[in-house]
Amino acid sequence: MTVPPPRALKQRVQDSLERFEQDVDAWVATASADDDVPYLIPLSFLWTDGTLLLATAASAPAGRNLLAGGKVRLGIGQTRDVVLVEGLAESIPAAELDDATGDAFAVKTGFDPRTLSTPYFYFRVRPQRVLAWREENELRDRVIMRDGQWRTD
Amino acid sequence: MTVPPPRALKQRVQDSLERFEQDVDAWVATASADDDVPYLIPLSFLWTDGTLLLATAASAPAGRNLLAGGKVRLGIGQTRDVVLVEGLAESIPAAELDDATGDAFAVKTGFDPRTLSTPYFYFRVRPQRVLAWREENELRDRVIMRDGQWRTD
Repeated sequence: MTVPPPRALKQRVQDSLERFEQDVDAWVATASADDDVPYLIPLSFLWTDGTLLLATAASAPAGRNLLAGGKVRLGIGQTRDVVLVEGLAESIPAAELDDATGDAFAVKTGFDPRTLSTPYFYFRVRPQRVLAWREENELRDRVIMRDGQWRTD
Repeated sequence: MTVPPPRALKQRVQDSLERFEQDVDAWVATASADDDVPYLIPLSFLWTDGTLLLATAASAPAGRNLLAGGKVRLGIGQTRDVVLVEGLAESIPAAELDDATGDAFAVKTGFDPRTLSTPYFYFRVRPQRVLAWREENELRDRVIMRDGQWRTD
């Protein structure tokens, strides 16, 4: 199999933003604050206002971890076309999200936590560090956002 | 879109074992023992002796977390065709893996950590709990292995 040459930084940023817009699901990794137990679950997201918006039940492990600490890592794309996002999640009770964003989330994901009787939270993840790579030849320059800023150099 | 009816337990076990045999990469979630920082990275694996065998550098975050605690969660497949594996990783210095398994790992993954000068470890993950689902209608019966035993009921 021929591996294409590594993408330029600008292309990686553009490809990653396209994934944020178009992909529906992310692999969401969290950890419990009490011990070193990792947790991993696919969740749907909406890219809005420079944040990745997720939703899950307050009682679910991801919900508990995000409410307790908020540290999160998201894997978007495929294992050979990865966008990895590190960020902190800000929690928003389902009933308190503004209507337009809640509607946009429901349209994109097919899932509207505002209609459920169990307590749900939205979580806004503002990317702080983003890495993107396809094959090994892209590992060297994989950091495309640092400290919340897309690299432009 | 029409969602197919939920698969029977036996089918889910069979489909999951096929993924173990055929898929090359897993999303690997670990957590650091010091705090509640989750870590997520795609790694290649080999299904051998009832274990999922991974390899990573001792100094990489996943390597450090697995050497310190060993708790791991693997996501295999797609976000709408998920096999989630919980287990403990047993570490094996790269030079100490038996030759046949090391060769099989290199053939499947295209990656042979025994040839590298930086310290690498293999990690054997014996599944303790496995969950498998495609769409929401399969969530109810998603636990297909408990306490290291495939469910057969």
